Amino acid sequence: MTIMPDLPFLTPLSPQHLAAAGVPEGWQFGMADVVRFHELDALNHVNNVAYFRWFESLRIPYFAAYHLSTYSPGDPTLVVMTNSARYHAPMFLGERYVTVTRTASFRSSSFRMEYAIYGEGTLRATGDCIVVCLEEDAATKRPLPAAAIDAFVSRDKASRE
Amino acid sequence: MTIMPDLPFLTPLSPQHLAAAGVPEGWQFGMADVVRFHELDALNHVNNVAYFRWFESLRIPYFAAYHLSTYSPGDPTLVVMTNSARYHAPMFLGERYVTVTRTASFRSSSFRMEYAIYGEGTLRATGDCIVVCLEEDAATKRPLPAAAIDAFVSRDKASRE
Amino acid sequence: MTIMPDLPFLTPLSPQHLAAAGVPEGWQFGMADVVRFHELDALNHVNNVAYFRWFESLRIPYFAAYHLSTYSPGDPTLVVMTNSARYHAPMFLGERYVTVTRTASFRSSSFRMEYAIYGEGTLRATGDCIVVCLEEDAATKRPLPAAAIDAFVSRDKASRE
Amino acid sequence: MTIMPDLPFLTPLSPQHLAAAGVPEGWQFGMADVVRFHELDALNHVNNVAYFRWFESLRIPYFAAYHLSTYSPGDPTLVVMTNSARYHAPMFLGERYVTVTRTASFRSSSFRMEYAIYGEGTLRATGDCIVVCLEEDAATKRPLPAAAIDAFVSRDKASRE
Repeated sequence: MTIMPDLPFLTPLSPQHLAAAGVPEGWQFGMADVVRFHELDALNHVNNVAYFRWFESLRIPYFAAYHLSTYSPGDPTLVVMTNSARYHAPMFLGERYVTVTRTASFRSSSFRMEYAIYGEGTLRATGDCIVVCLEEDAATKRPLPAAAIDAFVSRDKASRE
Repeated sequence: MTIMPDLPFLTPLSPQHLAAAGVPEGWQFGMADVVRFHELDALNHVNNVAYFRWFESLRIPYFAAYHLSTYSPGDPTLVVMTNSARYHAPMFLGERYVTVTRTASFRSSSFRMEYAIYGEGTLRATGDCIVVCLEEDAATKRPLPAAAIDAFVSRDKASRE
Repeated sequence: MTIMPDLPFLTPLSPQHLAAAGVPEGWQFGMADVVRFHELDALNHVNNVAYFRWFESLRIPYFAAYHLSTYSPGDPTLVVMTNSARYHAPMFLGERYVTVTRTASFRSSSFRMEYAIYGEGTLRATGDCIVVCLEEDAATKRPLPAAAIDAFVSRDKASRE
Repeated sequence: MTIMPDLPFLTPLSPQHLAAAGVPEGWQFGMADVVRFHELDALNHVNNVAYFRWFESLRIPYFAAYHLSTYSPGDPTLVVMTNSARYHAPMFLGERYVTVTRTASFRSSSFRMEYAIYGEGTLRATGDCIVVCLEEDAATKRPLPAAAIDAFVSRDKASRE
């Protein structure tokens, strides 16, 4: 609790806040949150599925900040094609944590995102997912917006596959 | 979005913050949060069940602040016996809101809590629940802690039934 | 486990199956299901919010069977305005249960549904909700379909308020 | 809907039922279920996170059937260390599907499970996870029960890594 006394919650964190929360360099986009009771399971720790919700809850504002979609008419339909997580250490009720994400690489109409969870300064989980950019029919591939590719490269140092 | 630019999230709000968020007098305990993607349903608004999660996510820190339980060994087992919600206006992705709660009345080993959700300054939902205080066997009634009754009365102006 | 050895799951039950599961007369529409691990909380029993999911999971096929909506274009938008539950006895991993529902009363564009959960032949929870029938704009009231009113009255013995 | 008219839900399926549901050979353990409203997201298809719930809801009865744990005192603590899913085709409200799982390989105190989802006879998703067998302290490794290894090998043709 002592490591992050002043972290603002649910707001994209500054590089200073990320560093203060124990996030290593190389992650530009993250938000702080708190473990809720409904995220625990009968073993009294955070259930493994809850982490995918945390990844998703960061992915949506990331999509907006990186010019991919604000879920408005005309925006691409972004569909998760693969999803993975690795659990490094358990998490408990009331713990504060930071979820971070970045795009590691991209193709013409898809990209691979990475995730990490830092709780009280230690790594708790990592993950990745591949997202495909589609037209509103959710079937036809749509090229990534140029502004999104710019943000992938300039902010996340993503590489073109 | 403009009504709550500086609200701290996930932290018990001060009376000034509650007032700034449009919460009327009479509510002492509240926290701010943001609508997540997974709380929407196929109708693209917040699903009616999600509000019960929000009530729960505030109830747990309320239990700690009001000396009822921190979910530690020896603490009473607190069980929800009834639950209700009334939906006043729909809520959408990314909206900021404040959940508030208070204990309206209590008996020797149970109490009735009230809830309200204010989003961007307008009332979105209300609710209540009855909570029973039990021993660790989750069956035998246990008298409410004296410190909890003091907090119910002094902070929430709760009445003994 | 012995009381319902042959109950078909997730399929509207016949009057014989409802009776075999310990459901009293007066309930015409029900389905059997099993408690899942993710419905438990840290207290190792079914979390109070899960019951609202069970009500919802029965409500949707009820809407289809009672000619209200199959969530197809042109169907009314059905919105839950109030929701309540009362918990009579806890439920545990792997328990089989039957959720039943009926419409108790209706007005021109709304109706009140009742719910009950029977697990291994004993009452575990009850609930009710008020549903409003709206146009596709989710704002303008729409009269209940005549076929729905017929089903409310003939199958559920619902009364007009 | 026509491919699986008589499938029993939520009950381990026989080889005949699995074949009738379009599941290829090599999967011995599966159950049928139906897509619920709360599993949809705002895009009106099943949310990518829901599949992990389906894997979990099959994993628990698999643990019992394969002599790993019935979540009773003295049983090992089974913790998911990695989790992955790949989405092949979207799923929609009311669709019937079969989740299947098997253990592909094992070590002295861990094993790798595979999953697949077949909906109306076509592959919708696949996944895998690594599960570690621990003592009740949820920290010390515990050797896999001999009966579980026997079941992995004889039923699932799992290989020792």
